[in-house]
Amino acid sequence: MNEEIAVQLTSQPKEKPDEQHLGFGQYFTDHMFVMDYTDGQGWHDPRIVPYAPISLDPAAMVFHYGQAVFEGMKAFPHESGKVLLFRPDQNMQRLNISNDRLGIPEVSGPFVIKAIQKLVDTDRSWIPQAPGTSLYIRPFIIATEPCLGVRSSYTYQLLIILSPVGAYYSEGLQPVKINVESSYTRAVQGGIGFAKAAGNYAASIKAQNDAKKEGFSQVLWLDAIEKKYIEEVGSMNIFFKINGQVITPAINGSILEGVTRRSVIALLQSWGVPVEERKISMEEVLQASISGQLDEAFGTGTAAVISPVGELHWNDQEIHINQGNIGEISQRLYDSLTGIQTGRLPDEFNWTISF
Amino acid sequence: MNEEIAVQLTSQPKEKPDEQHLGFGQYFTDHMFVMDYTDGQGWHDPRIVPYAPISLDPAAMVFHYGQAVFEGMKAFPHESGKVLLFRPDQNMQRLNISNDRLGIPEVSGPFVIKAIQKLVDTDRSWIPQAPGTSLYIRPFIIATEPCLGVRSSYTYQLLIILSPVGAYYSEGLQPVKINVESSYTRAVQGGIGFAKAAGNYAASIKAQNDAKKEGFSQVLWLDAIEKKYIEEVGSMNIFFKINGQVITPAINGSILEGVTRRSVIALLQSWGVPVEERKISMEEVLQASISGQLDEAFGTGTAAVISPVGELHWNDQEIHINQGNIGEISQRLYDSLTGIQTGRLPDEFNWTISF
Repeated sequence: MNEEIAVQLTSQPKEKPDEQHLGFGQYFTDHMFVMDYTDGQGWHDPRIVPYAPISLDPAAMVFHYGQAVFEGMKAFPHESGKVLLFRPDQNMQRLNISNDRLGIPEVSGPFVIKAIQKLVDTDRSWIPQAPGTSLYIRPFIIATEPCLGVRSSYTYQLLIILSPVGAYYSEGLQPVKINVESSYTRAVQGGIGFAKAAGNYAASIKAQNDAKKEGFSQVLWLDAIEKKYIEEVGSMNIFFKINGQVITPAINGSILEGVTRRSVIALLQSWGVPVEERKISMEEVLQASISGQLDEAFGTGTAAVISPVGELHWNDQEIHINQGNIGEISQRLYDSLTGIQTGRLPDEFNWTISF
Repeated sequence: MNEEIAVQLTSQPKEKPDEQHLGFGQYFTDHMFVMDYTDGQGWHDPRIVPYAPISLDPAAMVFHYGQAVFEGMKAFPHESGKVLLFRPDQNMQRLNISNDRLGIPEVSGPFVIKAIQKLVDTDRSWIPQAPGTSLYIRPFIIATEPCLGVRSSYTYQLLIILSPVGAYYSEGLQPVKINVESSYTRAVQGGIGFAKAAGNYAASIKAQNDAKKEGFSQVLWLDAIEKKYIEEVGSMNIFFKINGQVITPAINGSILEGVTRRSVIALLQSWGVPVEERKISMEEVLQASISGQLDEAFGTGTAAVISPVGELHWNDQEIHINQGNIGEISQRLYDSLTGIQTGRLPDEFNWTISF
């Protein structure tokens, strides 16, 4: 796709929020990117327009049959004045994996990255500068055809919106308490768990609400079939350090393959820390805790980067990890990843692009 | 909820479509019902307004995390000039089951039925009169809060739209060809399969597209765990008549409990036809076919009412049913259900309401 991106600037720029109280995904910038898809014509009319409500027929298929996928990325300010993006090619690759699973037409990854750059550039003044903040980038695709038959839509919209964000968890890097969910299921083999699809999150919300009420930050999902093996946290992949070795559940068709997960594995390998992708059961984690070999646990994701886990509740068992402190590996990974993302550390893997 | 429903009539009524070529869910009437939910305030501002696009913030949670549920019902014209609704209380009960599973606030069933009646009454001239046609009613709820955190939305909209429809399948009552899906999964225990949630349909579309390409009307889903037991068809429940007995998969947490399914079971019982709700495997269906005991198979659903199945493809096996003809029970159920729904037959179960 080689079409020019049209730009219509806002005549009413909004007031910017206080960088100390951004929260996550609550404020949005002055502009957004929109592009349409029409069956037979492909993606067309890419444009940057003032951030504004979108207008959809009430029969638009996204409302009824959930054909919707998204990605999450962050832009970071570099001290040179440039902006850094972290591995956007990986997000584009996953976006097309999600598209394929949901029956949504493929997009051109390089073109969407170009659109992201142009949009971020347009709203460059919105990139927050305070430590721990960034500009969250949310590309998403929705089915727009007004029709109540269950099938792939003939029309779609791809939008990109930007949100200046602080820490995803109010705890920041402080270890979080997580509930291991034994009743509800997030995803199963053959389903859409590996895709970044709206429907996966819809399935997770009730358990998440229940966990919040009990004082937990998140839910840890187990496999749908045996309810024994660890899958992922609602919005993060999960890692355990047991007896000096770092273990994370292997990609199995129902787990989302996180870009941060992949980056963490590469970093650990480059440091010579043994890291294994394999099946890991809650029983193994419990036994490691009892025998004193469970050194650390942490979640990984674009929103939270690294989130140490201080406590896991599994049925009647309370598993306390590293006395509720930030683990050594968690801290080192957080420092390294955010260092690379912001350009404070050398980018030996060529993960960032700047503009 | 006891609020008055405000009515704003359109000044530009649309031209009505040809009743012979309605298709399914392609045309919409002149008005729609809308009602808002705000956390702390509950459902409010119920209103009937001209059918028009709705305006949502691009960060509205329905686009990102799929909090969306719906129902499907039909209004039928009675020869007296009255309109008949079929078991709307059952749809409202299921709507609240879906709401609960998706973390969406409960609605008042009686109030929504009142809204449906008022809306159908407003667009009474849109109810098609041709045989096999009806006015399809689609109530749905979407999460509208603009926020990218994964949790229940604080605001929602409930909308009701109406569509004059013909047969759901272009085959009409002619038996359909169905592919038994052995790779993809629709739902699993602990998930949202029993809810009428957008996410379930999103998960089904790719398999449905693949099946269409191969000449099948629909997909028959197997259980997620063993891939042996029959669950449901994409938009229907399924029944088999084997050796004089009618069998349908038991409700198990991953199957949608159809209102038509429940009505079919009640009708069969009232006729003294033995009917069983239990686990049934594809192997059992294949063996019944080989031994000549598979008399009929049919799907049930609001959209299609009764849809005889003429052929099932399961891996390399082709199972032909009743020489591709409409079975005796299928025909009798279709005649009875549509007879009750349209008031041509006495409503011994008190299933319909009229206005």
